[in-house]
Amino acid sequence: MTTDHNTNFDPYEFYAALVAHKLIIPVGVPGAFGRSAIFEDILERFNALVSAHSADDDAQMMTFPPVISRQLLEKTGYLDSFPHLCGTVFSFNGDERQARELSRRVGEKEDWSNTQSMGELVLNPAACYPVYPTFTGILPVKGRTVTMLHWVFRNEPSNEPTRMQSFRVREFVRAGTEAQVSSWRDMWLERSLGIFAKLGLPAHSDIATDPFFGRAGKLMADSQRKNELKFEINVPVISKTAPTACCSFNCHQDHFSTPFGIKTHNGDVASTACVGLGLERIVMALLKTHGLDPTGWPATVRKHLWP
Amino acid sequence: MTTDHNTNFDPYEFYAALVAHKLIIPVGVPGAFGRSAIFEDILERFNALVSAHSADDDAQMMTFPPVISRQLLEKTGYLDSFPHLCGTVFSFNGDERQARELSRRVGEKEDWSNTQSMGELVLNPAACYPVYPTFTGILPVKGRTVTMLHWVFRNEPSNEPTRMQSFRVREFVRAGTEAQVSSWRDMWLERSLGIFAKLGLPAHSDIATDPFFGRAGKLMADSQRKNELKFEINVPVISKTAPTACCSFNCHQDHFSTPFGIKTHNGDVASTACVGLGLERIVMALLKTHGLDPTGWPATVRKHLWP
Repeated sequence: MTTDHNTNFDPYEFYAALVAHKLIIPVGVPGAFGRSAIFEDILERFNALVSAHSADDDAQMMTFPPVISRQLLEKTGYLDSFPHLCGTVFSFNGDERQARELSRRVGEKEDWSNTQSMGELVLNPAACYPVYPTFTGILPVKGRTVTMLHWVFRNEPSNEPTRMQSFRVREFVRAGTEAQVSSWRDMWLERSLGIFAKLGLPAHSDIATDPFFGRAGKLMADSQRKNELKFEINVPVISKTAPTACCSFNCHQDHFSTPFGIKTHNGDVASTACVGLGLERIVMALLKTHGLDPTGWPATVRKHLWP
Repeated sequence: MTTDHNTNFDPYEFYAALVAHKLIIPVGVPGAFGRSAIFEDILERFNALVSAHSADDDAQMMTFPPVISRQLLEKTGYLDSFPHLCGTVFSFNGDERQARELSRRVGEKEDWSNTQSMGELVLNPAACYPVYPTFTGILPVKGRTVTMLHWVFRNEPSNEPTRMQSFRVREFVRAGTEAQVSSWRDMWLERSLGIFAKLGLPAHSDIATDPFFGRAGKLMADSQRKNELKFEINVPVISKTAPTACCSFNCHQDHFSTPFGIKTHNGDVASTACVGLGLERIVMALLKTHGLDPTGWPATVRKHLWP
């Protein structure tokens, strides 16, 4: 019998290698590092490849800021399911005396958190959220499809490089009948596996669940799994035995359609689905699989990104 | 004597026109609207024009997330000067019982702000902030230049469309000797006026000051003006008499070099300067000047953006 010491990679070694090769730039807070020009070039070229594969989809492009309306999360139950992941934006609304007190506390390294109060914005936790209110009303017969590239936030500080607090997702959202959105979701799963295969990534799809909070969350995850509402594409990046989810393919049933009054052409409550491609994770999957210097990647891979 | 009713435009009329022409997408929170594909196309093409004009600058590209280390703002005095503009990221770190209480308050539309606590991140208030720590140490003889395109945040909700809470800045930062950075700053002011002239924008440069908070802030602004540390390029967008600042050109003296230990090649405390181009404001300046349908813009303007 042999012992396989390579069953798992070392995530911190991979992080250190990304830093040493000037691909990411540490900032002193976990999961909020900077990206170098080389990292960004890979990311932009992957994004362009996705655009090329979806050019005939008639998807409308929208761009929303990294902060969205707090009401949007309140209305969709995000804080019930994922209270631990949410970032809320607080700010100072005091007078001159209070500003001097804030300044004094900062200078003396005292806690200044109670000088801040909650406002109307939260960090966007998933690229698709700001799109749903724009679907309110009756959809056209063929439904609607929107695409975005958004910065999203998750409150999960970690030195494991694929576990970021702030990252970008190329997203597609579809609203229509249940049949329209579920066949579209399945099409994207196949399409994405095809893109990953072209790029030589050892990718596999699997049923998945969202990271619901607490004990009640386990029941929600069980239901989600039973109904096959979420699939992910996984690639080994920081672990061989626990590959990293790089894309997700989600059917929401009426989760967004009911609160935002989204109806199919015949007046029924619509269904929605979304596809999210985690751009930084995909860049890291490419770097792990093909090496930290993209000029040395196989020609069969490079031709798709630098055509 | 005649009365000129056109001395000022109506900012809310311009906002409504941007919405009606599907250039921006309201989200129910002031200054956090979405951008359409047409808006984004103009923005990206202007950004590419800037890249073309600076291609020979040997500027290193970096990309940082919209959230940065809270310590970075504490260390640079941002909270002394601009406490009112800062957005701090709070989150929930409680247990299951506290999560149920958060959920109940959201459901019953009660204040849930005290379920949140301050973390290690703030929203990035100016594109250049995360770059300064990367300059720590001895600079090369020729200094260093970095460029970024970042989302920045300002806590100033307004329905005036150019006054955004979240927007993008194409930024250039230079570190070196006082002479290196101030001549570079002046070069960029001339270069930017040249780009604006090509695009047919009625642009003028002027000495400017930062929006320092309170009475003490007035003294800081006076000193900044006296030392000619900040220039802006203004274009009429929502007012003829108070044109909108679309770019700024800033000398920081040792404001960032001292806290981050940035030294010139001979060991002196370095100087830094930055140039920020407000991308959404420039898009709006183009739309105001040449009309809301870019396909109808003068050929002399279009050739620079759609070459």
